[in-house]
Formats: sequence, C-alpha cells, structure tokens
Amino acid sequence: MVNKKSVAYSVNQSQIILISNKSEILKEKIGKENVFDFSIGSPSVYPPKELNEEIMNVINNVDPIELHKYTQDLGLKDTRTAIVDYLNKKYNLDESPDYIYLTHGASSALSITINALASKNDEFIVFAPYFADYNVYIENANSKVVVVSPDKNFLPDFHDFKKKINKHTKAVIINSPNNPTGVIYDESVISEISNILRKAEAKYKHPIYLISDEPYRELIFKDMEYPFVTKYYDNSIVIYSFSKVISIPGERFGYILLSNRMADKDEVFNAIKGSGRALGYLCASTMFQKMIPSLLGKTADLDQYRKNKKLFEDMFDELGYEYVKSDGAFYLFIKSLDEDSVRFSEVAQKFNIFIVPSEDFGVKGYERVSYCASEESIKKSYNAFKSLKEYYEAQKWKT
Amino acid sequence: MVNKKSVAYSVNQSQIILISNKSEILKEKIGKENVFDFSIGSPSVYPPKELNEEIMNVINNVDPIELHKYTQDLGLKDTRTAIVDYLNKKYNLDESPDYIYLTHGASSALSITINALASKNDEFIVFAPYFADYNVYIENANSKVVVVSPDKNFLPDFHDFKKKINKHTKAVIINSPNNPTGVIYDESVISEISNILRKAEAKYKHPIYLISDEPYRELIFKDMEYPFVTKYYDNSIVIYSFSKVISIPGERFGYILLSNRMADKDEVFNAIKGSGRALGYLCASTMFQKMIPSLLGKTADLDQYRKNKKLFEDMFDELGYEYVKSDGAFYLFIKSLDEDSVRFSEVAQKFNIFIVPSEDFGVKGYERVSYCASEESIKKSYNAFKSLKEYYEAQKWKT
Repeated sequence: MVNKKSVAYSVNQSQIILISNKSEILKEKIGKENVFDFSIGSPSVYPPKELNEEIMNVINNVDPIELHKYTQDLGLKDTRTAIVDYLNKKYNLDESPDYIYLTHGASSALSITINALASKNDEFIVFAPYFADYNVYIENANSKVVVVSPDKNFLPDFHDFKKKINKHTKAVIINSPNNPTGVIYDESVISEISNILRKAEAKYKHPIYLISDEPYRELIFKDMEYPFVTKYYDNSIVIYSFSKVISIPGERFGYILLSNRMADKDEVFNAIKGSGRALGYLCASTMFQKMIPSLLGKTADLDQYRKNKKLFEDMFDELGYEYVKSDGAFYLFIKSLDEDSVRFSEVAQKFNIFIVPSEDFGVKGYERVSYCASEESIKKSYNAFKSLKEYYEAQKWKT
Repeated sequence: MVNKKSVAYSVNQSQIILISNKSEILKEKIGKENVFDFSIGSPSVYPPKELNEEIMNVINNVDPIELHKYTQDLGLKDTRTAIVDYLNKKYNLDESPDYIYLTHGASSALSITINALASKNDEFIVFAPYFADYNVYIENANSKVVVVSPDKNFLPDFHDFKKKINKHTKAVIINSPNNPTGVIYDESVISEISNILRKAEAKYKHPIYLISDEPYRELIFKDMEYPFVTKYYDNSIVIYSFSKVISIPGERFGYILLSNRMADKDEVFNAIKGSGRALGYLCASTMFQKMIPSLLGKTADLDQYRKNKKLFEDMFDELGYEYVKSDGAFYLFIKSLDEDSVRFSEVAQKFNIFIVPSEDFGVKGYERVSYCASEESIKKSYNAFKSLKEYYEAQKWKT
C-alpha cells in the first residue's frame, strides 16, 4: 500500500551501511580494539581547533534569535559571498554568490540537483565505480542511470562514454577524488570530458550538465592543481560538502554552485530552489551558516590520512594484495582474492575485517578499504589481513 | 528543459516568503522600527538558557569525532529513546523508540512521510485553511490534494470530510494548533476524525493514515489536555519540530513518530527510511541529537506570545477588526476589510503593515497576523492599523 520504491530503498540499503552496522555489533561483542572496521567513510581525525572556537564565538556574540532563525532557502548572503570569494581566489574563478545554494551536505545537494534537472525519459551518465546512492536519486526522479565503464586506470573509458551519450542525456556526474577508488581526474581528463560534452550539446541542440560531486576536493595527497570544473565547462554544477574537510559529516553542511557562464543559469537555479522546497528543505543550519565564513580554508588534520594510506600501502605491498594506485579521498581499492568479491567481504568478516565489495559501486572484483581509521587499528589489522591471504592461498591448493 | 514542476515551486513561492522578503527590503530602507512585520512565523523570543549551556556541555565533554560523526539514518538510539520516554510520560502513551525517525524539522518530516506513503492516484485530504507547502509535497509525490472546507469556527466541516473520503484516500493531514488560524482541535474533534476514518478503513478495506503536524504543540494558551493523536487512532503518524518550542527554526530538528499500534508499522517505517534516503537525507544534526535529550521539556519564553496575543486582541477589539477566537500557535486570523484579501494585504503594505492573505492557506477573506514580534512593534502598529481601517471606511463612503 505504501510507496514501493521507498520501501525498496530501505530494504536494499547500501552495503556500506549494512557492513558498517555489522561491524558495530561485533565491536559491542568483542571490543572496538579487536574489530578492523574499514567500511565507512566517516572522518577519523579531529576537526580543526577553530571549529569549537567559532561555536563559542557565535554563541557568545550573536543574538540567539539571529543565530537560530530561518534564513532564505539559498542561505545568508554573507555566507554565500564568503564561500564564493574564497573559491574565486583559491581557484582563480569568477563565480557569483547569486548562484550558490547552501544545503544539508552533498547528499541533499545531489538529490536536489538531480530532481531539479530531471524530466521523464532523461538519462544521467555516471562513471563506474560510483557511489550507489546516485542510482537512488536518479531513479527517484524518474530518470535512467547510464553507466560508463572505467579504463584500466579507473579513469573514464572515453570510447564507451561517447557511445553512451544520446538525445536523452540530461547530465553527467563525476566524482574526483573518487569514492571508492581514490583516483583523481587531472586537467586532461576534465578537458576531454568537457570537449566530448560540448560536441554532444551541439549535436543534440540542448544543454548537457556536468555535475561535479566534490566532497573530497581537499583530500589530495600529491602535488597538483585541482582542475575546478567551471573553468572548463560552462554548463557545470559543483556539489560540495564540508563533511570531510573539517570532519563534521553529522552536521550536514554543503552547497550547490552553478557556473556563472551557464546560459540558462536562472532557470536552473529556480529549479534548484523549487526542488529543495519540494523535497522538504527550508535552509541549511543557520548556526553553521554564521560559522562557515571563519572556517573556510581550515582543515582537519588531513595529513593523518596520508600516513594511513602509506601504512596500508606498505602492508598490502608486503602481504601481496594488489590495489589501485591513487592519490585522493580516503580509500584504497584492493583486488578481491575471491572471484566473488561479495563473498570475499564476508570471508574477511570472519577475520574481523570489514571492507565493502565493489559491487556496491557498480564494478566487480574489488573491495573498498577506508583509511578513516586509527593508525593503531591499521597496524593491528596486519595479522588479520595476513591470515585472510593465507586462507585464500590454502583454498587455492585445495582446488 | 529542466524539471518544470521544480521551477514552478520556486516561481510560485508562498506568499509568506514573498511578503516577508518585501518587508525586509522596506526595513533596510526606512528602518526596522518603522516596519510592522507580522508576516512570518519565525520565533521572536529567546531560546531557553539551557540551549547555550548544552552547546557548551557537548563541545566541552563529547569527543569531537563522536559529536559530529554520521549517525544511523533514523538517529541515535539514546536520543530516540529519550524523546519517546518523554512523550510517553507526558501524554501517558506507550510508544516505541523503534518507530521514531529524526529529521531536519517538520518540513522534511512531512515531505519524507508523504513521499513514503504516496502511490499514483492516491489522495491526501487536508483541512482548509492549511499550510501551502502541503500542496507542494503531495503534488511532488504525484498524488492529489483534496481540500475539506472549514465550519464557521474553523474546525473541520465533518459533513464535507465524509463526502471527500473515497477509495483513493491514502492519508489525512491535520495541524493543531493550526497555522494560520490558531484554532486547536480538542478531544472531541480528534475522536470524531478518528471515528470517521475507522469507518472509512472498514469500508474501503485499506489503512488510511492520519498525519498530525504538530510544530505548535506547546503553544497553547488555555487550560486543556492536548489530545495526542496516537491515543485515538492506530494508523497515526506524528510530525514534530523543535523550531517553535525552543526557538531554533534555523537549526532544522524534528521527528516522525509512528503509532506503536499501527498494523503495518514496519512497512511504513521502512518506506520512511527509504524515502528519506531518496530525498537526500542522511541524518539529523548529530550535535543537536546529542543535545536534545537535555532540552526536552524546556521551552522558550512562550508566555510572551500570550502577551502579544492579548495586545493584538485588545487593539483589534478597539479598532473594530474581527478575528477568529483561538488559543494556540502564534497567529491571529483577522477578517479582511477588502472583499479581495490579496488586495487588502497589498493596501496594508502602504501603511507598512505586512500580513499574509488567507488565499495562501486555501480560504478567502482573511489575513494571517503573526504575533512573533516585539511588544513594542505591536504597540507601535496601532496607528497603522487605525489608518488602514480609516482608509477602508473612507472607501466605503465613496461607493
């Protein structure tokens, strides 16, 4: 009798959530220190000290009614201006505070944007591997998910990409640094995607939006300039979250930014505001809106993730696990030792290791290992990963 | 090219927002103290002092990673249990923490619930006058809004209600204390609604859900017991927000509670969780989840609203404005002096008075006056309301 789609989205919960829940149960049973939980991408390093300072600042210095009142749906002008000024300076852009809409994190930003763009029979292209909830947002907006295969380096297979574009293509979603692989799209990749889309727009005579989902934008562990997508493609939409950069995933704060050079930016921005209203959003937390301008450019101790990554890489090198070479986000994508990577994840649980099979991200044969974890837990997991490897080697001899 | 529905929800913004925006522009021009802004229902009294104390408490005593991490979609067990325990004790109920889902305020709770229940061709019954965004949530879920007329006391016209129920009726939405009239449904009204629905369920052989939207539950200015809807009707769903009771509308914190006696509560709860996921919600603010247990039962200075109400009533009595007698929320519903109440609201703006025409709530001939305002502003508005009355009396002589 109820909405069957809604029931399905709950019953078929993402593997990340299911596996993370299992690890929580085991932690209660055998103690947190004995469970190697690398399932969830929830920041494991402290927020910058400025976060608490800024909380103290607003509660001591802002009138409580001002601090907690409704704001306009798109957010306070001062906050929007501060964010856009920061981006313009850092990435040498020319974006406008009139086309940024503050949200409850990246998930709501994605859901609002997809629902704002989608008409019936529209297609949204995603690049595998990709975050499973893209499917939910796209299908819930009565549109179709079209998946492009990765190349051997887990970059888009451009040949496949070109084949998948057609007159129904409404938008393309990219996510760099990538969840689950950690791979980063450099300038040449963004340029190539943009060129392909411009040709397709000319051919089909309608805009194709490039939605860039960037919650890991600051989690880059090599020297490079981040290719900010609005510089390369006019019909681009940036989705951002403060969850990872300042370790506040539970506070749900992010934004949607439209390129100032988008031809129909007013119509798209109206659609975003109307979509937000229809999905039940009123405004992002006013208290965090007041705080965010002082937190721009501040980060949690992201270097810890670099250390964690190195620990895992050294361990996997020594034990003979293969993994995708990457430099971003806080994930390693390791090759499954089992031909069935869902089964591999289940077997790993017998060794108290919790990792997410790549099926959840639309590809086979891999596992996502989140290095949002303590150094101690990573070091301590050595024996478990060793035993897991030995278990599979023993299996091999048997067959 | 974009979602036309979404554009319409933004372009056809609610009158409350449009009129409130106009008042803000005038405030910047002639000074806040010269604008009589009674347009928006945004709390005007300070949060309880315990709010800041509790913020200090959590930032000083909770590990920052714990304080800001993701929680389960439905919310922390401790918080859910504290809320349900509080309700069970206060209203003598037997509800379960397993059927409460924490949300970003009442708006997201309504949007999630309606989307969770709605299938194509479903009808949702609302009682006029009612909050305009109910239309948006219902239509966006591809269902139909069915409006029941009020009786002369702005209670449901039960004759009309019975006529409007049919085999397509999925749910009925009530809102008491009511926005915009301030009218409260007493036990006899809730009982009568429940009886009518039980008969209809038996006749059409499917559940009909009673959604009770209760952000003003604590804003009752007479002696009465609040008839908690789960006591009267098994298939009931309570929507709540902490926005009004502790003056934190910008922080977006509320919940959805299913009656423990709902026959298909597990399926409905799954649909709610899946609907929340599809609309882009991950969890309510973790920091506020940690704080809320200590804030249950605390209130802003709600007595100020009682005083404001009296000030307005005395003023309207003296000036000869008619209004609906009511005892709840923070609104008075006054009769328009113009046969066209939209025009009346516009004329009022010439006297720097900002009030919302009842058309926005699905009825004609009235204006909503919010008494979320300072005593000073209400007192100072006397001359403006007087001049407005005189203006209309002069018009009368002319015709």
